[in-house]
Amino acid sequence: MNTRIVLTKRPSGWVDESCFAVQDCAEPVGGPGDVLLEAIYLSTDPYLRGRMNAGPSYAPGFEIGKPIVSRVVARVIASGNSRFAVGDVVWGFLDWALRSVVPRGEGLHKIDTTLGRISHAVSVLGMPGLTAWVGAIEIGQPAPGDTAYISSAAGTVGQLAGQFAKRAGARVVGSAGGDDKVDFLRDRCGFDAAFNYKTGSIDEALAEHCPQGLDLYFDNVGGSTLEAALRHARVGARIPVCGMISAYNEVDDPGIKGLQALLTKRIAMTGFIIYDHVHKLAAYQARVAPWLRSGELVFQEDIVQGIEQAPAALIGMMKGEAIGKRLVQVAAE
Amino acid sequence: MNTRIVLTKRPSGWVDESCFAVQDCAEPVGGPGDVLLEAIYLSTDPYLRGRMNAGPSYAPGFEIGKPIVSRVVARVIASGNSRFAVGDVVWGFLDWALRSVVPRGEGLHKIDTTLGRISHAVSVLGMPGLTAWVGAIEIGQPAPGDTAYISSAAGTVGQLAGQFAKRAGARVVGSAGGDDKVDFLRDRCGFDAAFNYKTGSIDEALAEHCPQGLDLYFDNVGGSTLEAALRHARVGARIPVCGMISAYNEVDDPGIKGLQALLTKRIAMTGFIIYDHVHKLAAYQARVAPWLRSGELVFQEDIVQGIEQAPAALIGMMKGEAIGKRLVQVAAE
Repeated sequence: MNTRIVLTKRPSGWVDESCFAVQDCAEPVGGPGDVLLEAIYLSTDPYLRGRMNAGPSYAPGFEIGKPIVSRVVARVIASGNSRFAVGDVVWGFLDWALRSVVPRGEGLHKIDTTLGRISHAVSVLGMPGLTAWVGAIEIGQPAPGDTAYISSAAGTVGQLAGQFAKRAGARVVGSAGGDDKVDFLRDRCGFDAAFNYKTGSIDEALAEHCPQGLDLYFDNVGGSTLEAALRHARVGARIPVCGMISAYNEVDDPGIKGLQALLTKRIAMTGFIIYDHVHKLAAYQARVAPWLRSGELVFQEDIVQGIEQAPAALIGMMKGEAIGKRLVQVAAE
Repeated sequence: MNTRIVLTKRPSGWVDESCFAVQDCAEPVGGPGDVLLEAIYLSTDPYLRGRMNAGPSYAPGFEIGKPIVSRVVARVIASGNSRFAVGDVVWGFLDWALRSVVPRGEGLHKIDTTLGRISHAVSVLGMPGLTAWVGAIEIGQPAPGDTAYISSAAGTVGQLAGQFAKRAGARVVGSAGGDDKVDFLRDRCGFDAAFNYKTGSIDEALAEHCPQGLDLYFDNVGGSTLEAALRHARVGARIPVCGMISAYNEVDDPGIKGLQALLTKRIAMTGFIIYDHVHKLAAYQARVAPWLRSGELVFQEDIVQGIEQAPAALIGMMKGEAIGKRLVQVAAE
């Protein structure tokens, strides 16, 4: 039998396991032109929380009783489609299921297995990596000598955003929710400083670690962290806005105080969504893959084994228990 | 005797006349190299409110018992300085006084009287005009077919920002606090639509006048107007932030709700201060002066007569009673 993960109810506030069910389900059957896949890695990403809500977001919501969908790395196990051969490794937005069928192979991307690990196609060499690049480099425009502050710095995007800003000559400071993550940022990712936002005041930490103030704040969280960054921003600072996980809808949004800093300090605050930048992916991969191979760029993955662990793995990622990119491996490579 | 306007106490909330005194004072005496001036026009500007506070802003605060200072258009009545001759018309940041002396003529700018009216040097052909240009054109980047919304649209900067965006091909919608101002925007400045924000819901007005949403919001006010603009913004909207008069300090700042729109709609919100752009003034003047002479560009002034009227004129400007640029004329041209 096949196995899948479905959404059983919409969460209010924190997600817990009662929102999911691990279900046996029918083996997929393909017709002419279709592609049959065996999933290898399921990607867990912060944006999935928004898709569990009923309201519209920038991506459509999940349906109750239907599978969770995210980026999945998979192997072609049968193909009626000339573009895909058995054994090809691909990624696409796929159901969380051991096996699935993709009509006419639409939306599947072949993974170039020479570039890096196949799991990297949904992280450092995929859209999350490009997210870090566009935010930290294209929008953030770090200059040598700048100070860049990254929140959620030990996450998939944050670890890369910090390393990219560092390569551009910035002094890089990161915050994360655990001492082990802080050690990871300093000792493995080469951040100049890092702090645990859960054990002290963000204002005091920024005053200590960024005494000259911030030229770039890569915003992954919004809320009081953004307010602190506005207070510590220097004249001309750039704030790429990549995530605002601290407020999902305007009803319970406490608002952001201190936006006058945009004016008094001539700050540019720019939201972006990576789907607008898809056309840059190949050039990004060509630039970054050699750094990854040489070890100049560090990328941390946190791989949980077994599809039945997928709900707990996703919830744990949302609660911040993972260092780096959390994946669920459901078949051998 | 000479006459001047001094700040007698710091306002809390709305400014009233008890914050000012009209004082007799000594005639200024110049030494070698100094320039003696007779004031002609005193400029009233929204930013002056911030300078009445004790706290630091982006410009230094006024001192109690000392004159108000703003841009003043003046005539040279005596000069010990080879750069200035008697009869030259100049502008500078000068005391609000009938006559004053400027040591070594520092900070005085000679006005090219062939460009336009001499009063224009502190408005449409000066820094306020350049403010409208940088915000509406350089930061706002209006494209033909865009919809641009301007708050405080009947003010010095707003009337120009709207006309500049219109020249760039945008459909222009303005809001102001009075039906006479709305008529002025529609009938004289060529705005496609305008509404009185005091007599209805901004959300409903934006829904009616900008049914496709906003591509550009020139923010002169912050607060709930900014929140409404974020709700009505289209994907890729630009928000040049020129003023946030609705909140002066973070203590009583209610915060801005709905900033998630920056992310979901990829909005760029960019604060600017015109002092960073001073080097562009000559090119701006050369571009705009012909439009003003030909009548293609409308610029409305509201001129109050007599230095003793200056406090009331300033307070009235802050309360929104003027259409266009309010000046106080204290001597004949």
